[in-house]
Amino acid sequence: MTPIKTLGILLFPEFETLDVFGPLQMFGMLPEKLNIILIAEQQGLIKSRQGQSVLTHFSCQDAPHLDFLLVPGGQGTRKEVYNQPLINWLKSRSSQADITLSVCTGAALLAKAGVLDGHKATTNKFAFNWVMEQGPKVDWVKKARWVDDGEVITSSGISAGIDMSLYVIARLFGEQVRDKLAKTAEYTPTQDPEMDPFAVS
Amino acid sequence: MTPIKTLGILLFPEFETLDVFGPLQMFGMLPEKLNIILIAEQQGLIKSRQGQSVLTHFSCQDAPHLDFLLVPGGQGTRKEVYNQPLINWLKSRSSQADITLSVCTGAALLAKAGVLDGHKATTNKFAFNWVMEQGPKVDWVKKARWVDDGEVITSSGISAGIDMSLYVIARLFGEQVRDKLAKTAEYTPTQDPEMDPFAVS
Repeated sequence: MTPIKTLGILLFPEFETLDVFGPLQMFGMLPEKLNIILIAEQQGLIKSRQGQSVLTHFSCQDAPHLDFLLVPGGQGTRKEVYNQPLINWLKSRSSQADITLSVCTGAALLAKAGVLDGHKATTNKFAFNWVMEQGPKVDWVKKARWVDDGEVITSSGISAGIDMSLYVIARLFGEQVRDKLAKTAEYTPTQDPEMDPFAVS
Repeated sequence: MTPIKTLGILLFPEFETLDVFGPLQMFGMLPEKLNIILIAEQQGLIKSRQGQSVLTHFSCQDAPHLDFLLVPGGQGTRKEVYNQPLINWLKSRSSQADITLSVCTGAALLAKAGVLDGHKATTNKFAFNWVMEQGPKVDWVKKARWVDDGEVITSSGISAGIDMSLYVIARLFGEQVRDKLAKTAEYTPTQDPEMDPFAVS
């Protein structure tokens, strides 16, 4: 039997709600396949941009090995790009993960850590220029719901994280698993990564 | 100036993640129009079906007046339909609210409280029969993304809460506000409440 893999989701103050809980809903429907943990610099309560406080399971320092690492976006990224210990942690943990994922402006943190250097990536369409500035060596894709570049997968803004998550579930566990989950969640996913009505020019 | 209105979201153990955080994302993008509070029987941490713990702002007893009351679904509803104090609280607070909303099997709790009696309502399509049993005097709608019956608005399963929320935002604050929010969240909402690929026969 394959050992269950661990998905770590990073939280920081003023993370965007759906960036975290959209993926958490979809990946969280597979408890037999994935162990999901919430991580922040200090273990404890972290308040989102929308005002609810969520308890993290681990501090960055105490978090176990992460097979998958997901970084959400939100207003808080504007501050965290200057948080060098966190950026260093992302660089280190990403290098040990099978896949690193971001939703929305989470890509800014990965770009700052150099994780996206030489990779194709996308991000929130209304903060595109700012995110691009964090990663001049990244091949930024302006029209994409999400971009799969192998070991890094990045999505567009907020709700796009749900579609990316269902795509990743299909990649890891098969399309049948994805289809069953989407149906259970009564969700009609965007399955074409290039279908992006919010593209920037 | 119109006083800011309060939206209360009820939490209980094993609530479904996206039932809460989909609406919370959308309504939470209007902090100048809505005060959002999380409520549970006891103030404190409540764990969702997907395993994350969220801090509530108030106990049921201490919660202020609610202009809008939203009830999520999830596995926990199977237990809470037998929680008479909670059902009584829902009946009382719903009668004082402008609009009572449910996502997914949250409709079972409202049905049990009699809140939906004589109203049209919908719910999760994969638990439809069980929910119907909780409210024999409800006019259940089997094909609907959501149902607006004036003072009660109910949605289908999990992700449908996002579409219902954007509809409610348009009803309360206008379509321009809804369109701007949806664009910011890079979300293409279902705008036809009868568009329901998950309908039961």
